[in-house]
Parts: sequence; C-alpha cells; structure tokens
Amino acid sequence: MIRVGILGYGNLGKGVESALSNAKDMQLVGVFTRRKSGVNIATPNVGVYPAAELANFADKIDVLIICGGSATDLPVMTPEYARYFNVVDSFDTHNNIPAHFAAVDAAASANGHTAMISTGWDPGLFSINRVYADSILPDGATYTFWGKGVSQGHSDAVRRIDGVLDARQYTIPREEAMAAVRSGIRPDLKTGDKHLRECFVVAAEGADKARIEKEIVTMPNYFDEYQTTVHFITAEEMRRDHSGMPHGGFVIRTGNTGNNGEYKNVIEYSLKLDSNPYFTAGVLVASARAIYRMNQRGVYGCKTILDVAPADLSPLSPEELRKHML
Amino acid sequence: MIRVGILGYGNLGKGVESALSNAKDMQLVGVFTRRKSGVNIATPNVGVYPAAELANFADKIDVLIICGGSATDLPVMTPEYARYFNVVDSFDTHNNIPAHFAAVDAAASANGHTAMISTGWDPGLFSINRVYADSILPDGATYTFWGKGVSQGHSDAVRRIDGVLDARQYTIPREEAMAAVRSGIRPDLKTGDKHLRECFVVAAEGADKARIEKEIVTMPNYFDEYQTTVHFITAEEMRRDHSGMPHGGFVIRTGNTGNNGEYKNVIEYSLKLDSNPYFTAGVLVASARAIYRMNQRGVYGCKTILDVAPADLSPLSPEELRKHML
Repeated sequence: MIRVGILGYGNLGKGVESALSNAKDMQLVGVFTRRKSGVNIATPNVGVYPAAELANFADKIDVLIICGGSATDLPVMTPEYARYFNVVDSFDTHNNIPAHFAAVDAAASANGHTAMISTGWDPGLFSINRVYADSILPDGATYTFWGKGVSQGHSDAVRRIDGVLDARQYTIPREEAMAAVRSGIRPDLKTGDKHLRECFVVAAEGADKARIEKEIVTMPNYFDEYQTTVHFITAEEMRRDHSGMPHGGFVIRTGNTGNNGEYKNVIEYSLKLDSNPYFTAGVLVASARAIYRMNQRGVYGCKTILDVAPADLSPLSPEELRKHML
Repeated sequence: MIRVGILGYGNLGKGVESALSNAKDMQLVGVFTRRKSGVNIATPNVGVYPAAELANFADKIDVLIICGGSATDLPVMTPEYARYFNVVDSFDTHNNIPAHFAAVDAAASANGHTAMISTGWDPGLFSINRVYADSILPDGATYTFWGKGVSQGHSDAVRRIDGVLDARQYTIPREEAMAAVRSGIRPDLKTGDKHLRECFVVAAEGADKARIEKEIVTMPNYFDEYQTTVHFITAEEMRRDHSGMPHGGFVIRTGNTGNNGEYKNVIEYSLKLDSNPYFTAGVLVASARAIYRMNQRGVYGCKTILDVAPADLSPLSPEELRKHML
C-alpha cells in the first residue's frame, strides 16, 4: 500500500480524498491543514492534523499531495515539503513553471525525493496530448480549446465589480473555430476567436446593471477581446443552476503526411467533466502512484507528467497492461 | 543525428521513409529488402541493400525499424534483429503479444539493445489512452471504436470468394452506440453492436451477385454478427473512389467521481487518418527516437509505448517541453 498524505482540504483536497477511496493500492494516512478547527473529513479512522505537525510524519507518508493555490501557496509549500517527502502538486501558473521546477528539483534531489509539479488536466493530460500529437505529426498545428466550463479567475474578476454580489463566468469554445481547426486549414486564431465568455451575475438591489455589464465586457485582459454575454439572475437561480464546477476542453492537432503532404490527419482529445476539482484529483492520485514507483527505483528530483511512462500511472502490472490494455 | 535503417519497403516502409524526412534529428542510413530487384526509394543518396547484408551495418545504424507483417514476418525478424540492433516494430496480433514480447526481450537484453514492439495507433496511441483514462477514472468503462476505415483482413476475406475480382471493406462505428457510450450509461455492447461493415465489390463478368452477397454477409467471424451492406461497383469505380487507405477510430471512457459517484466525466480520443500506413509510420519514427534515447541511458530489453515517457518521443528538450507544451 502506498501511504498518502493530503495537505490542504479545499475542493481539490476533498477530491483527492475521494479519489484515494477508489485506489486499491493506496491508503490515506492523514489530512493536514492550516485551519485552526472545523475540518471534518469523509474517511473514517483517519486523522486531521495541523500542517505544522507534518515533519513528524516523514516516515509514515510515501507521497504528500499538496492541494494549495498556485498564486501564493505552492511556490512556498512544494519546495519546502519536497525536503521531507515525495510530493505532487497541480501548479498551473504557466510562466512561473521553470522557476517552480528549479526550486522543487533542488529540494527533492538534495534529499533523495521525487516530485511531480503541474499535474492535472491542463497542465497535465492536455500537455501529454500536445506532446504526443506534435511528436507524431511534426508537419501540423495544435490548438487547445477550453470549456464549456467555469473559470474561477474570470468569475472572481466579475465579483470585484462594484454592485456585484455573486458571479459565475463560463468559457465556451467557438464552434466555428473548432470546425475550422478540424478541417485541417490550420487557421490563424487570435485571442477571442477561439472562445466566448458568458457571465451570470447577481447584482445588489438598486445597482446600475447597464454600468455593471459595460464594466464586464470592457474589462482589459479578461473580457475586452472576447464576445461576452451577461445575464442578470437572482441569488436563488445562482444556487440552483450554477453551483457546480464543470469544465473540459479539446486539444486538436491537424497535420499532413506523405511525400507531398497529400494525406490529412486529425488527432483530437477532449474532456467533459462535471467537476473540475474531483477529476483533477484523479490525475493527482495517479501521479502520486507514479512518483512513488519512480522514487523506489532511485529516480530523484522534479518531474512533470511528460517525464512519466503511462504504465507507472496504472495500478495494473506491466504484464496485465500488455495483456488487457495494449 | 539518430541513424535509422528501414527493413521492408511496402506501404509502411515507404511511410517511415517519408516520416524520417520530417524528423530533423534523424537520418535514413539505408533501406533493406528481401526483394531481388526493382526497389526505388524516394530519398536521394541513400542505398537499397539486400536484407542479408544487415549484419554489416551493426555499427552504422542506431535503430532498425522493421516494417513487416505480423502473421509471419515479425515473429521471426524482430527477435533475430534485436540481437544486432535497437529495433522497433508494429506487431499487432493481440493474442501473441506476450510470446513476441518474451522473445524480443530475451534477444535485446542479452545484447544490450532496446526494442519496442507493437507501436502504432492500435496497439499504440489507443493503448496509451486506454491506460491514462483507466488510471485516472478507475470507476468507469472504456470503449474502442474503429473507423471509418479500410480493414485489410476483411477486404482480403471478401476477395477470396469465388467470382470476386476485387473488394474493399470499410469498418464504420455505429453512431447510436457511440452516443450511448458518451451518455455515461456504460452500455453492454456485443460484437456487432459497435460497428457496421460496408463492402465494395468488383464481380467477375457473369458472376452470381446474389450468391456473392450471401457468402459475404453470412461469413463466420468476419461478417455474420454484423450489419453488413454490399455494393457492386466497376473496376474503374474501385480505382477512382477506393484506392486510399483511410482509417481512424475512437477511445472513449466514461466514469464517475465524487463520494457518491455524483459527477460524470467523459474522456475521448479520436483519430481521422487519410492514410493508415503513413500515420502509423509517424508513430514508429517517434518510437525509434525514444528507444535510441533509452538505450543511451542504459535501459535495455523489450518495451512497449506504455513504458515510454512522452518526453522521450519528442525532438524537443525537456526545458522546451516544459516551456511550450506543458
């Protein structure tokens, strides 16, 4: 049994706990939190501990799954805990990946540990698919579409507007852009050509809805380059219709083969997820399995899911995989 | 530069030659064939040699890509040449993979070589996707659909019928089966529920078409359990409309997450290929790159694509991959 700890018990941490209950070769050792109280977990007979006590668990945990935010939590926590544990995180601030990788690699390598950063579905499964498709069809172009799904960052941006009580923003792939990509013409798609943005907003009583709508659709970086629609709804409608965290998307590569590029090819990968954090958690748990195995084989330092053989993610043996999956 | 040899110059061998011209880090050293004469290759300044001369190239070839048939060629050739070279093949007789793996593993391991068997798209890319999806969504079910595409085995079976001059068989996924799978109900699909078979037949003058059609649709194993349609066409129509080798298919897994399985998820991978052999060749070439690198790192023996990290298939460096693909 691979002994796993969870650091952080938000939606992602809860998802990891749930995913571990489906992994017969893994066992939850404890949930670690910075919260002072009020954390009740779903798994019976497993303890909740202050994060400060983690150092006492160095020989009781094989992999620590760190469920923190990319903005401020993970850049500190993952290098820190890579000194004591094999670790996995879902760091997704793309521009900062090289710096985060270097910090985690130094800490893990120096202590004989193995770490995986930036796993999940994007970065993660979508990254894998970009690499496979690019390697196999070098004469081609790859496009990533996100949605339909809730963007937390865009929802938060709308919530900060004066007079907005609550908001949810859906990112939606543009059908016509996807059709153009699949046709193989390798279109040049600018920001805003690939996605629509749809906002559901609960406004304060008496708030100026026309002003709120204008502030949304003209917001630089977030909305100004997109076709954006805004719907005002009640708090009750928000609870009833928009409390989920669905997401998904598409990675599509088209490319040509043949001595004169005469053969067209389309490789397409897609995800449709009712719950973004619970699915991401499944990737974190499979990644933890792989990291444990690599550490057992003496492979140390920081890895990404691009460095992991698919077989290492699976609970099945190499023989079973060749027999049933190949 | 990775120095590559091609053994066998049918459609797949030609595809590998073409794919190598798009791989900037790889170089074709020679094409080896059992044919006595008449082999003209597309690459300038590269030789064509009798297969019997391969032993003289042991220190001139980094990876030998073996483009033979799974029925009789590869079970002999891949273990034989794994003694002298790192090798890659596309062996696809599913039931015989364990025996083939063992034979190739013994030959490669004993000689410090690295081999990959059964690469391509199924087995190959579809296998990878089955393993990723199964590992990430353990509470789920995976379905593979093939087509629309030409099945060589089924086309050959029709050609063997008395009075048939030529035939082409297309395997076509059933839309209603794909819709049921995507809905998440995890349907129990029997042989014939997932695919339709469509045959185009050139009959000899005066042949009994009704008899031919009956022989096709009732043929055990090949057609009797499927909904099959038969079209009689002219030799000219066959040449004009059915000379390509398109193929493709879908790997779809649906599964549930959440403490009570309350969240549905769909993972879908699909290929749409104008030329089956030329696309398969792209996978063989990327696999050869990975096998060369693994051999350089001292990883010996037989592997499948399930044992290979995506990064090893790519011409890009780990730093470039993290920066541009992750």
